[in-house]
Amino acid sequence: MKIRFYHAKIMTMQTDFEISEGEVWVEHNRITYVGPGSGGVLRKQPDWDREIDVEGNLMMPGFKNAHTHSPMTFLRSYADDLPLQEWLNRQVFPMEAKLVPEDVVWLAKLAIMEYLTSGITSNFDMYFHQDQVVQASVETGFRTVLVSGLNDFVSSLEELEANYEKYQDYHERIGYRLGFHAEYTTSEKLLRGVAALAEKYHAPVFTHNSETAAEVAGCMARHGMTPTAYLDSLGMFAYGGGGYHCVHMSEEDLEIFEKRGLTAVTNPGSNMKLASGTAPVAQMLERGISMAIGTDGPASNNCLDMFREMFLVTGLAKLRERDASAVPAEQVLAMAVRGGARAMGLEDCDCLAEGKLADLIVIDLQQPNMQPLNHIARNLVYSGSKQNVQLTMVNGQILYEKGTFHIGAEPGDVYRKVNEIIGKYRA
Amino acid sequence: MKIRFYHAKIMTMQTDFEISEGEVWVEHNRITYVGPGSGGVLRKQPDWDREIDVEGNLMMPGFKNAHTHSPMTFLRSYADDLPLQEWLNRQVFPMEAKLVPEDVVWLAKLAIMEYLTSGITSNFDMYFHQDQVVQASVETGFRTVLVSGLNDFVSSLEELEANYEKYQDYHERIGYRLGFHAEYTTSEKLLRGVAALAEKYHAPVFTHNSETAAEVAGCMARHGMTPTAYLDSLGMFAYGGGGYHCVHMSEEDLEIFEKRGLTAVTNPGSNMKLASGTAPVAQMLERGISMAIGTDGPASNNCLDMFREMFLVTGLAKLRERDASAVPAEQVLAMAVRGGARAMGLEDCDCLAEGKLADLIVIDLQQPNMQPLNHIARNLVYSGSKQNVQLTMVNGQILYEKGTFHIGAEPGDVYRKVNEIIGKYRA
Repeated sequence: MKIRFYHAKIMTMQTDFEISEGEVWVEHNRITYVGPGSGGVLRKQPDWDREIDVEGNLMMPGFKNAHTHSPMTFLRSYADDLPLQEWLNRQVFPMEAKLVPEDVVWLAKLAIMEYLTSGITSNFDMYFHQDQVVQASVETGFRTVLVSGLNDFVSSLEELEANYEKYQDYHERIGYRLGFHAEYTTSEKLLRGVAALAEKYHAPVFTHNSETAAEVAGCMARHGMTPTAYLDSLGMFAYGGGGYHCVHMSEEDLEIFEKRGLTAVTNPGSNMKLASGTAPVAQMLERGISMAIGTDGPASNNCLDMFREMFLVTGLAKLRERDASAVPAEQVLAMAVRGGARAMGLEDCDCLAEGKLADLIVIDLQQPNMQPLNHIARNLVYSGSKQNVQLTMVNGQILYEKGTFHIGAEPGDVYRKVNEIIGKYRA
Repeated sequence: MKIRFYHAKIMTMQTDFEISEGEVWVEHNRITYVGPGSGGVLRKQPDWDREIDVEGNLMMPGFKNAHTHSPMTFLRSYADDLPLQEWLNRQVFPMEAKLVPEDVVWLAKLAIMEYLTSGITSNFDMYFHQDQVVQASVETGFRTVLVSGLNDFVSSLEELEANYEKYQDYHERIGYRLGFHAEYTTSEKLLRGVAALAEKYHAPVFTHNSETAAEVAGCMARHGMTPTAYLDSLGMFAYGGGGYHCVHMSEEDLEIFEKRGLTAVTNPGSNMKLASGTAPVAQMLERGISMAIGTDGPASNNCLDMFREMFLVTGLAKLRERDASAVPAEQVLAMAVRGGARAMGLEDCDCLAEGKLADLIVIDLQQPNMQPLNHIARNLVYSGSKQNVQLTMVNGQILYEKGTFHIGAEPGDVYRKVNEIIGKYRA
């Protein structure tokens, strides 16, 4: 497909947050031109399959959802308003035990649909049944980077390495990162095995890190070190990587993140809903630590919405620092796009520029929450909403446009199927 | 107009949060029937002007936005990421000084459009130029209860009383409550005057209360009492009323709210963005204090979205109490609908029942963020979004339906006008 977007406001996010007027051209899965309309006229234009009048609305790179458990859609609103341990042991684990691989495809497709409505063009997913998670992304046209959720109860080092090998060049929209569930669920023997794989493949490693105070206290009791320090002592981060959550971080933890170039993926909605705490986002940004944003899974958030997460990142930082100037809007946007892309190894879709992969979105500015146009970047972070997402393109394909999905499945069929699945599991 | 809604899921919120299947009939501005479709068939049906197939989606009472400054849309994204005093003195006050009454009509209409997209059917508004705020609501078909923002710099006791008298029976969709801006902006002489009016009219009084720690400290220094205790000592709350924000509350303050039957209107988005703190919502609810939810104005939030506020009410309470079970979804819904209605004197539109005013909404459940249907009330609070608002009816009139406004003005004209206004003021 060769698609020309014209009459657009464009925030490339290549070097700054400036907005210019012009056109974006997409041929197959790449951006072939970003610039003024007049400049475009002087170049040889291909035979367009489609020309889209953006009507003065905003084009920008898609958001990267840097921490997800997509198939957990089946647990949305199933177990809320419960303390963490009760939530996990009495609600989440018994239901997860009933999961059938074929069902995971449908559950993940439902999550992908929600990502698309929120302008999210890729996700960084940790869950069981990775073949089915991959199938959902491949079939819908979405882009997913998987990370292993290896722990003492699920998967093995052999399976992790096999999947790592298998998915390196499996599909142009699928990636794979080394990882494990968390220090508190994974034996030192397994952890040393993951570190050995990191060394073998010169690869970064990602894991849940310091999500709750209890997790950090447990690690201190077991190893006399915080999770970050302990994992680093095993050589886990010799080739980088990062942590999901990163709520309860010591100064030494922050130094390790800085020194190793690790990414802290913050998950503010989930950390609020499970009462886990507020991450030290302002401190991490001050140190220059790379940061990204994730929704976490639909059981703990329950919304898969980058707009809500972006507001929470800055709002919670302002509350935590007692400073209304903490973590300005532009820093949040950079985390949601460029920071996520870096963590996921998707530097090829981190901005709008010639040669980059065409993972992009159109934001409807002709809605009351985006008016007046005092400052569009701030509008996105402080008053933006899913309602403003007019079009979501992944790898040059329009998967969502003005409320309609183009994902090779009927929304009604997906809804019917996931309701059948929860009916079966709850019976 | 006589409108029949059929094939609906209905959450009446009359006594609980149960959901039944059936129909809602609206004749002129009132609900004339809520119940099973079959029951409807047995009754004499009027000649419908319109019959709407709700297609299994959800009907519920509209949200009440219990603290707003609607015309402040012109300051959205104009002054963000700034400490509170700098924000007020260097950005907000100089721009407000430029406000022209005619402009207020357009600025308030923009806010009303955003309320409608979020399923909000009425607002409790404090601002200057109240005649123009009223004009915007009357012209668009919206419902507004005004409250005076009297202080040492704006308005007078005479004007307050004149407006109170004028707007009591001015229009079926307009109400008026006694009030003043805040203790820290209003002299004791004026405050005693407001208390005398409360006594004269046997009327409740509303004001900004204990929004910031500095405000409480200032009142303690001036009067040796918290704002709540000081105002109560003047007889301000002899006939009830309430406070906006209520973030920094002592035990004695909570006792006064309980004893006087006052409503605490919480504004979590604004309190986050201005780093004011987190209100003790769980404590207030435990005491049985009536609570409502408001977005505050677009300069300090910046979004006028009840879905975002609802999630923040429970999310921040969970964080504050370090308890994931704090403030369950149903309590939040009750605040957003019934609590607001009580504060605003709109008990006639606080649920779906025969004889009530027809202020209601249709929520699209056929969207990925509302699926699967494990628990609809929790879906609304934890994953609901503006995107799910399919229809908003105020006083029997459909003002917003599937993205289209029916407010006697073209959206494009409103956007053009407010951008002209900010261009003029910023010049």
